[in-house]
Amino acid sequence: MTQTAITGATLIDGNGGSPIPDAVVLFEGDRFVGAGARNGSTLPEGATQVDASGKFLIPGLINSNVHLLDAWTFMIGTGTVEYLARFEGRLHEVIEEAAQIALANGMTTVFDTYNALQPVLFARDRIASGEALGARIYAAGNIVGMGGPFSADFSKKARETSSQTFCDRMDAMFEAGVGRRLAALPPEEVRLIIRDYLSKGVDLLKFAISDHIVLEYMNPHLTFSARVQRVIAEETWAAGKPLLSHTTSLESLNDAVTLGVDAMMHTSMTAGVPIPDDIIEQIIKKTVWAEIQPVHDEYQHHLETSGGMMAGYAGGVHRENIQRLIAAGAPILLGTDAGCTDPDCLADMSEGDRHERPWSIGGDHFHWFRAMRQLGMKPMDMLQAATKNIARAYKKEADLGTVEAGKFADFLILDANPLDDEDNYKRIHAIYQGGRKVDRSALPVKRLVTEYPRCEPA
Amino acid sequence: MTQTAITGATLIDGNGGSPIPDAVVLFEGDRFVGAGARNGSTLPEGATQVDASGKFLIPGLINSNVHLLDAWTFMIGTGTVEYLARFEGRLHEVIEEAAQIALANGMTTVFDTYNALQPVLFARDRIASGEALGARIYAAGNIVGMGGPFSADFSKKARETSSQTFCDRMDAMFEAGVGRRLAALPPEEVRLIIRDYLSKGVDLLKFAISDHIVLEYMNPHLTFSARVQRVIAEETWAAGKPLLSHTTSLESLNDAVTLGVDAMMHTSMTAGVPIPDDIIEQIIKKTVWAEIQPVHDEYQHHLETSGGMMAGYAGGVHRENIQRLIAAGAPILLGTDAGCTDPDCLADMSEGDRHERPWSIGGDHFHWFRAMRQLGMKPMDMLQAATKNIARAYKKEADLGTVEAGKFADFLILDANPLDDEDNYKRIHAIYQGGRKVDRSALPVKRLVTEYPRCEPA
Amino acid sequence: MTQTAITGATLIDGNGGSPIPDAVVLFEGDRFVGAGARNGSTLPEGATQVDASGKFLIPGLINSNVHLLDAWTFMIGTGTVEYLARFEGRLHEVIEEAAQIALANGMTTVFDTYNALQPVLFARDRIASGEALGARIYAAGNIVGMGGPFSADFSKKARETSSQTFCDRMDAMFEAGVGRRLAALPPEEVRLIIRDYLSKGVDLLKFAISDHIVLEYMNPHLTFSARVQRVIAEETWAAGKPLLSHTTSLESLNDAVTLGVDAMMHTSMTAGVPIPDDIIEQIIKKTVWAEIQPVHDEYQHHLETSGGMMAGYAGGVHRENIQRLIAAGAPILLGTDAGCTDPDCLADMSEGDRHERPWSIGGDHFHWFRAMRQLGMKPMDMLQAATKNIARAYKKEADLGTVEAGKFADFLILDANPLDDEDNYKRIHAIYQGGRKVDRSALPVKRLVTEYPRCEPA
Amino acid sequence: MTQTAITGATLIDGNGGSPIPDAVVLFEGDRFVGAGARNGSTLPEGATQVDASGKFLIPGLINSNVHLLDAWTFMIGTGTVEYLARFEGRLHEVIEEAAQIALANGMTTVFDTYNALQPVLFARDRIASGEALGARIYAAGNIVGMGGPFSADFSKKARETSSQTFCDRMDAMFEAGVGRRLAALPPEEVRLIIRDYLSKGVDLLKFAISDHIVLEYMNPHLTFSARVQRVIAEETWAAGKPLLSHTTSLESLNDAVTLGVDAMMHTSMTAGVPIPDDIIEQIIKKTVWAEIQPVHDEYQHHLETSGGMMAGYAGGVHRENIQRLIAAGAPILLGTDAGCTDPDCLADMSEGDRHERPWSIGGDHFHWFRAMRQLGMKPMDMLQAATKNIARAYKKEADLGTVEAGKFADFLILDANPLDDEDNYKRIHAIYQGGRKVDRSALPVKRLVTEYPRCEPA
Repeated sequence: MTQTAITGATLIDGNGGSPIPDAVVLFEGDRFVGAGARNGSTLPEGATQVDASGKFLIPGLINSNVHLLDAWTFMIGTGTVEYLARFEGRLHEVIEEAAQIALANGMTTVFDTYNALQPVLFARDRIASGEALGARIYAAGNIVGMGGPFSADFSKKARETSSQTFCDRMDAMFEAGVGRRLAALPPEEVRLIIRDYLSKGVDLLKFAISDHIVLEYMNPHLTFSARVQRVIAEETWAAGKPLLSHTTSLESLNDAVTLGVDAMMHTSMTAGVPIPDDIIEQIIKKTVWAEIQPVHDEYQHHLETSGGMMAGYAGGVHRENIQRLIAAGAPILLGTDAGCTDPDCLADMSEGDRHERPWSIGGDHFHWFRAMRQLGMKPMDMLQAATKNIARAYKKEADLGTVEAGKFADFLILDANPLDDEDNYKRIHAIYQGGRKVDRSALPVKRLVTEYPRCEPA
Repeated sequence: MTQTAITGATLIDGNGGSPIPDAVVLFEGDRFVGAGARNGSTLPEGATQVDASGKFLIPGLINSNVHLLDAWTFMIGTGTVEYLARFEGRLHEVIEEAAQIALANGMTTVFDTYNALQPVLFARDRIASGEALGARIYAAGNIVGMGGPFSADFSKKARETSSQTFCDRMDAMFEAGVGRRLAALPPEEVRLIIRDYLSKGVDLLKFAISDHIVLEYMNPHLTFSARVQRVIAEETWAAGKPLLSHTTSLESLNDAVTLGVDAMMHTSMTAGVPIPDDIIEQIIKKTVWAEIQPVHDEYQHHLETSGGMMAGYAGGVHRENIQRLIAAGAPILLGTDAGCTDPDCLADMSEGDRHERPWSIGGDHFHWFRAMRQLGMKPMDMLQAATKNIARAYKKEADLGTVEAGKFADFLILDANPLDDEDNYKRIHAIYQGGRKVDRSALPVKRLVTEYPRCEPA
Repeated sequence: MTQTAITGATLIDGNGGSPIPDAVVLFEGDRFVGAGARNGSTLPEGATQVDASGKFLIPGLINSNVHLLDAWTFMIGTGTVEYLARFEGRLHEVIEEAAQIALANGMTTVFDTYNALQPVLFARDRIASGEALGARIYAAGNIVGMGGPFSADFSKKARETSSQTFCDRMDAMFEAGVGRRLAALPPEEVRLIIRDYLSKGVDLLKFAISDHIVLEYMNPHLTFSARVQRVIAEETWAAGKPLLSHTTSLESLNDAVTLGVDAMMHTSMTAGVPIPDDIIEQIIKKTVWAEIQPVHDEYQHHLETSGGMMAGYAGGVHRENIQRLIAAGAPILLGTDAGCTDPDCLADMSEGDRHERPWSIGGDHFHWFRAMRQLGMKPMDMLQAATKNIARAYKKEADLGTVEAGKFADFLILDANPLDDEDNYKRIHAIYQGGRKVDRSALPVKRLVTEYPRCEPA
Repeated sequence: MTQTAITGATLIDGNGGSPIPDAVVLFEGDRFVGAGARNGSTLPEGATQVDASGKFLIPGLINSNVHLLDAWTFMIGTGTVEYLARFEGRLHEVIEEAAQIALANGMTTVFDTYNALQPVLFARDRIASGEALGARIYAAGNIVGMGGPFSADFSKKARETSSQTFCDRMDAMFEAGVGRRLAALPPEEVRLIIRDYLSKGVDLLKFAISDHIVLEYMNPHLTFSARVQRVIAEETWAAGKPLLSHTTSLESLNDAVTLGVDAMMHTSMTAGVPIPDDIIEQIIKKTVWAEIQPVHDEYQHHLETSGGMMAGYAGGVHRENIQRLIAAGAPILLGTDAGCTDPDCLADMSEGDRHERPWSIGGDHFHWFRAMRQLGMKPMDMLQAATKNIARAYKKEADLGTVEAGKFADFLILDANPLDDEDNYKRIHAIYQGGRKVDRSALPVKRLVTEYPRCEPA
């Protein structure tokens, strides 16, 4: 098998060291075989050479928290029935479409932490095998303890005008046996259910330590007692999987840190309560990875002036939480909750809500970079939060996160230095995933969700 | 072009005379060329002969009132979003599926009196041209004065959890410019709108003299003033189209009769008020065709004992209205409001609600025949209500309604005499539509709605 | 009985002639015995003399359209349950409180055109007999054809969380036998019901020619067929009562004018359709009195900029309708739909909604005067619209409307000329009702609704 | 002060020993001064003697769990607005009415574990001081962590049609500063809030370890983390008050037992999960008092055959939980959740729902006795569950629970032995509370809630 050498670019390899000018990055098949300064290396014989002089080469980006089927819609409640009815039987295609939009924007890998189990695993495997294009997917399936899209955790009200048969079928598919009912069961019953769930092929396990944000916005309750939390953790770790927490309050966050989960989603969302210093200290001391979902200043301003309920999402105390986590040096992951939003839902929104929306896949991570820079994060820290940190948090260091021999040859070539200006992440010259150059113009392959308008033949 | 002769069957030609034993029915291309007793005729040279000895040949059945997209679902309100979202862009295929199910059960022609205009005309034309199979369709599009599926006339509540963009698009498609707003406009504005609407290719015009039943079940209001009613009638008749009324109260029924519409839908539904004798007399005197939607005794019993809101639909005073119309000799049409119901909606129902359901296409007319026999209608009158009467009411006598030279060669060959037992309408030996034998086993061609379950690939 | 003479004021007697400076107005008991220039009259011996030099004396104001129980709340839907549950059993006291607030602001008579029949007649009689204070009340009870506060015409949604027993009891009380069901009945049944209703002691009969505005905002339907409308009119006139119409569309307005009702409520509200010139001509030719409910410029501006649904109420085409009716010289009545609003409902509103709110009794007519002046009405026409016109429209000329011998001695003494500036109607020096001076500071006698806050004893 | 001697009755003193025939019970002022067999005592000189030969004398009954304002209505959601609006400002009178109904049926003391704080303390003090009649009240005010009547814990949906000002005022009154928001706060903030709340005069503190049953019927979540639970317990015990738990799941029950609360409400309700044996063992070992709310066989049969959602309340696994607790000898308290139900809400119910309804005050404890006998509890255990046990659980042994010198002279004289047949509790001959004979026929003194119908003066 021939090797390929990318030469001349400034290499930012993800390990946090100084950028290496005039570097050579070598890969063969789907893996890197070397990377470093050009003067220290001779190009292998027969290697295909790609000149990238003047460019910047970084690891493929990773998103630690997406929901490729647009869970944000399920959460808001408007449009859920349409979305699921329209695409039922083709949900894996929606997931692939979302993965393709992500890939076309530089995301070579995404961790999907809430989705319909069967379709997401189906799409994951199709992409992994090369049958379909798209960001490489690792998937958690359901959030353990959370109900389906038509449960109290999401769009329950839509049941009033939908067929129960349809809603029940959707809920069962999403819950995959680990829904709200677990909150009522004793520890050893939960243990067996978790063990069974882990055997279904999920890559991660995420569990709801507290209520979903929609149930009672600022007064979240705990899904599981401390002893059941431990059972879930034991089983997950016994299966060698990363354990992720969903928390929406201080007490659930404290439980997550105490338990020592691998990563905490939307860490800053604490129902408007400042995270105490001692919890931040524990996060750092125990390296409990903190996924952060910020909103940039311009969007936050829009949310506040337009009076929407989302103003409190990443504003106020939550915003201060992010700033304090950054300032304290907490271990941070890029994540966005983004998914493939239906154009009808977007059309319902105001122009201000749509513009640079942080929860629609494709632009979500660009929003993240700007927001985190505004909140005080350093350029190299941001780059690592979007690459190496996630690989570490999710135990994928052998494959992902840096430009190093042995790992997947996932990388971006940018026209300008992303450490100078976070908007340079958008200036994508080329994307390589597993050693193959991505044809960005061909993505998404099939516009199932994003085609618009949908009309009858005339 | 060769002729085909069906020989030996007992002919019930739709004109109401005595059945003709050992008949010969001749057709060439899509039209009949002769029909009568065998002994009075010599078979044309080269005619293909089909022996039907011992069988019964009747005109192809016609339904004067269907909604091939399942308007009943829109009216009940549960499942509307799913139905429309799932099939958007393919609504004409749903209409074709419904038309094919109807055809496979002996309906060679259906009059669709409420539907999305563009898809129903598209499907109508495809069937008429032979591009698609299915019962021949004549279509009214919207009921003038009535709103779309997400308006107050149908599933407005579903708007609370749906995208407004989607609902608005659906409503606009169904309303086709002649929605609820017409109720607010002065006569001459309505005139221009109706004139424009009639130019869009509809075969009939149906207008809402009173409210839809869902708005206020037993207290219907009038959509149009008397002077606007007249304007609508004038324009429809000037365009040479039949005028149909939607009425749900005594006063709206009285207006319909006074105006002299061509046919009245669900004539017996008068918000629980007995139709006065003088109105029945006028119906007969002016031959205002009365479409009737009965429910058979077994189903009515189920509705009453299960306590559903549908018990009053064709029971109580409404049932007595039907009996009095039959007894008085009112001119009656078979109609059912039936459409292609989603399996999820059916699964939501109790077994009793599903069994021989009068509003699901395919079995709807069999239900009608049994119900009307129970209510006192004579066999030959029922056969004419399902054939010739509709052709007369809707001004299609040149093409439809009887087995007579010059008309479409639409006929059924039954194994047993439908005049002896209405269940014999189910004993279909063969169906011919426009001179072509229908391959019943091939219908519907594509199971878009009726396939079940819908699941993701494993 | 001694007479009283008010001397020295400028008299504006309500007949439209030039104001009479230095006038004498004489009354004895509850009636005027004379009024005119001082120099043409000798004061009767023993008359009590009240000097009003420099003041302006006008007839007591009349409101042609109030709902003393706050029907506006029932229409908006928020707060209806609280209002009715809190005051059940004391509704007549609420009505008295409202009538007292009206009186304290210069309204000596109000025509209540929608209210709970029994309580409003009870309060009317108590005030008429002197048992209770308050504006003199004439009452219509229910609007014929309209449902109670928990029907589709008002706050039906509140039924979802209320006891049905309570809602049914309230509805029955308000409907008083002439509710929505009438829309379904044949003419002769309606006749008997109306005849019975008229015998219950109502002073007026108001009927809903079209839907209430809440049912479908801009697409109103007709409650009654033309022949039923005639039956209602015949019975009302046979009983010698004024006939009032509720219309919300052009066609219902046209029906009202064609029928020749005595007065039309909220005449300008035509679902956004301009009233054609020929209808305005008929209004004038037949003297069909037009009650108008305007909103002044400042409030309209607030409604439009705050984006509320009320912006269309008296704005846009409806505003133009008012302007055209004024310009054409249509016969106009002051009316406001105002009632005694609950402080909790007011507290829910924005400051802008509360300030000079046109639908809260007390300030409602001051709002009206300003609005109508802004819309082009002349000072003397406004004064007559608030006095003599209403007496004429409602056939009360023998008792009300002008300062003339024989009529009730209802009058206001103002500090400044209301023909100069409509705000001078607020500059009330004294109010006389039926010859008795009103102690404004004592009104309302009992703050049942308007007391605030309501709290438990500490 | 003179003493009174009840002589000749069979005394069942509440301590569980054999009944004492021909006993003498002596009291002076509001306290017992002696009780025992007659032959062992000489009546004090001057004692008033009351002959009760043939009767049975038992301690005054106590209910460990009532909500005198009908919280059941708030929970069901229907009728809440009416109830609170109708009686706002007079809620203490409603509480007194309920306490009077309870007293008239043999309840001399009730523990109100959820109620509007200010009114219940006001009524408590009025009764304690003799200003008002009624069962002696001890009150908890709000359930710590639970929202008001218009929060997600009760009738939130009613907010859609109510004024927010009203709902907010009611919620604030009921929450009394210890509402749902506590679930979001860190331990030391909760500590200060609890400390403050305890200083407001409550007699008990009850806290929600898990969600209210209405939020998600069978999947309850935990309100407080383990560390916050401990804080609440510490503060309560430091203040010398009994600590009560609200639990609706196994995990919350386990937390309650682990924490060692004084009493657990509706102990058997575990979202359909059997209570494990080890938890039952701990309940017994630690004497964690278990309030039980059973439903008797006849009522349970009605609930199951009528298909209501209440069938699962005390049926199925919950019923088995009760049976197992009884069989194991768990320490049990009588409690019913009963309150003063509005007649409109009762009228809404079916006859079967109303008959011997376990949640309407007055008959509630009679229902309890029958149900518990059917479930296997012994007569003497039931009597103690309704008397002495509650005094012990709530630390009121100095005053309540048995017929012993020094305690309040609260007792019933029954016509028949309640240990023979639980229906004999209904055969009340006389009730004494604090040494005063209760005039049962005079209760309730004022029928505020229970008067019916409410109508306007005619």
